[in-house]
Amino acid sequence: MNIKAEISKRTEEINDILEHYLPKEEGYPKTVLEAMNYSIHAGGKRIRPMLMKETYELFGGSEDVVHPFMAAMEMIHTYSLVHDDLPAMDNDMLRRGKPTTHAVYGEAMGILCGDALLNYAYETATLAFDKTDDAEVLAHIIPKALRILSVKAGIYGMVGGQVADVEAEKMGLSLDEDKLRYIIDNKTGALIESSMMIGAILAGASCDTLQKIETIANNVGVAFQIQDDILDVIGDEAVLGKPIGSDERNEKPTYVVLHGLEASKEKVKSLTEEAVDILKGFEGDTSFLEEFLMYLVYREK
Amino acid sequence: MNIKAEISKRTEEINDILEHYLPKEEGYPKTVLEAMNYSIHAGGKRIRPMLMKETYELFGGSEDVVHPFMAAMEMIHTYSLVHDDLPAMDNDMLRRGKPTTHAVYGEAMGILCGDALLNYAYETATLAFDKTDDAEVLAHIIPKALRILSVKAGIYGMVGGQVADVEAEKMGLSLDEDKLRYIIDNKTGALIESSMMIGAILAGASCDTLQKIETIANNVGVAFQIQDDILDVIGDEAVLGKPIGSDERNEKPTYVVLHGLEASKEKVKSLTEEAVDILKGFEGDTSFLEEFLMYLVYREK
Repeated sequence: MNIKAEISKRTEEINDILEHYLPKEEGYPKTVLEAMNYSIHAGGKRIRPMLMKETYELFGGSEDVVHPFMAAMEMIHTYSLVHDDLPAMDNDMLRRGKPTTHAVYGEAMGILCGDALLNYAYETATLAFDKTDDAEVLAHIIPKALRILSVKAGIYGMVGGQVADVEAEKMGLSLDEDKLRYIIDNKTGALIESSMMIGAILAGASCDTLQKIETIANNVGVAFQIQDDILDVIGDEAVLGKPIGSDERNEKPTYVVLHGLEASKEKVKSLTEEAVDILKGFEGDTSFLEEFLMYLVYREK
Repeated sequence: MNIKAEISKRTEEINDILEHYLPKEEGYPKTVLEAMNYSIHAGGKRIRPMLMKETYELFGGSEDVVHPFMAAMEMIHTYSLVHDDLPAMDNDMLRRGKPTTHAVYGEAMGILCGDALLNYAYETATLAFDKTDDAEVLAHIIPKALRILSVKAGIYGMVGGQVADVEAEKMGLSLDEDKLRYIIDNKTGALIESSMMIGAILAGASCDTLQKIETIANNVGVAFQIQDDILDVIGDEAVLGKPIGSDERNEKPTYVVLHGLEASKEKVKSLTEEAVDILKGFEGDTSFLEEFLMYLVYREK
């Protein structure tokens, strides 16, 4: 399989779906609508909607009901980046080589753009109810997906991880293992988990399957983050497009800083192998998802 | 009717309901959980959940399914205040005589607290699905309420109004009538509208009734805002707890600044009379809602 070509084909499909759900840039709030679209178009890899769609299809899903959730997930991911980049947070003026949203539209509009994206994610997700006449899907399956979407994005998921991360920066290397794992699980892992779980839920997967999917996604999220920290040590600056060694310089507590490079590589390997093993246990064609997970983890940038 | 006593009784009931849905202050994101509860406890009048509950009961609703929506509405209202007070927005250190959330917890936590409240509003609203076994309510009524909740809070509602308001401040008195009305309709009116509309929807009100409720709520929202601007001219500083005349000094375009005091008082009167007239047309006991609407509009602070 040419995984890059397969990913690229799917990214195009996802971008078409996203485009359909983005707001028209018209009327009085035009500035924020432009800022929303700017931030979504700023070049994300669409990892989360791709995981959602692939998991949905793995368990036999073939309806459009997943589309609003894919768009909602990318909006939530994007709002979190827009707010993370704000001056009071990470104060980043560039992301993926482009000016950040507040750098272009100002700080007030950066705040409102993030708020608008988060809220619009839920507006968009509720459109799933218009995609089906199936009573079970309407009354139980979409509500369950909405519940996972919101819980994993909030204080018991991504926002919880962000809060702990903001506080951890003050603690430097005195951060304990438990809290570091909490941050990775939630700041990075929560949306990966909910993406795959929502795919499975919408396809009608059983509770048992859903738990396996949560484990796979958690492993991938954690491995993804540790690999990020590994690249900060051994990455190629030209490929990464940013200087390496910043975590150590900033005394940022990462898995690599706390456990060393070899143990970190070992951890990424065992987490990924376990995820792929569970995945292989499902009926159906898991070949793309397997390669995609490996590609996500063992990336060079 | 002793309207103040009746409001006070209902406020206590609503605070009990809210309390049930607020997060426990434990675990790693403790700081943001404290900030969320601090901002909710900072003394709101609970106007929106009260309007929702009263409208729900007017149309025969008597179940708990409205409770998660009441809590969600107050969380959305509160997040909008927390973000409005941020340094990059209105930069307010005090609200209702108490330090604002970012003044207590810092700017980063102020941003995250608003995000957390907005997201938690949707987490909370989805709990409505657990409150009923009625297939019609599950499959159609709660989804419709979720749709209104999210649309009126976002770019086609409150956030749209906030964006236009931020931009209007730069325009000063050159602001046109259309845009001023858009701001009032959305920044102030949208959540009043969705509060009453969600109450009506959950009680199974017809489309025709829902349109009447939207008109009532829009009139009340606009009258409420114009009265706010009137009080900025003729209010009693001791009662208001803030200096008057700030809108004129800041060249803030308000209905009063654009149309004068007499025309503004006339407008408040006609909007309120129309709202009460429509309300009287419904079967059922509208006496509290009538007096409550008048109380909201003709307040002295």
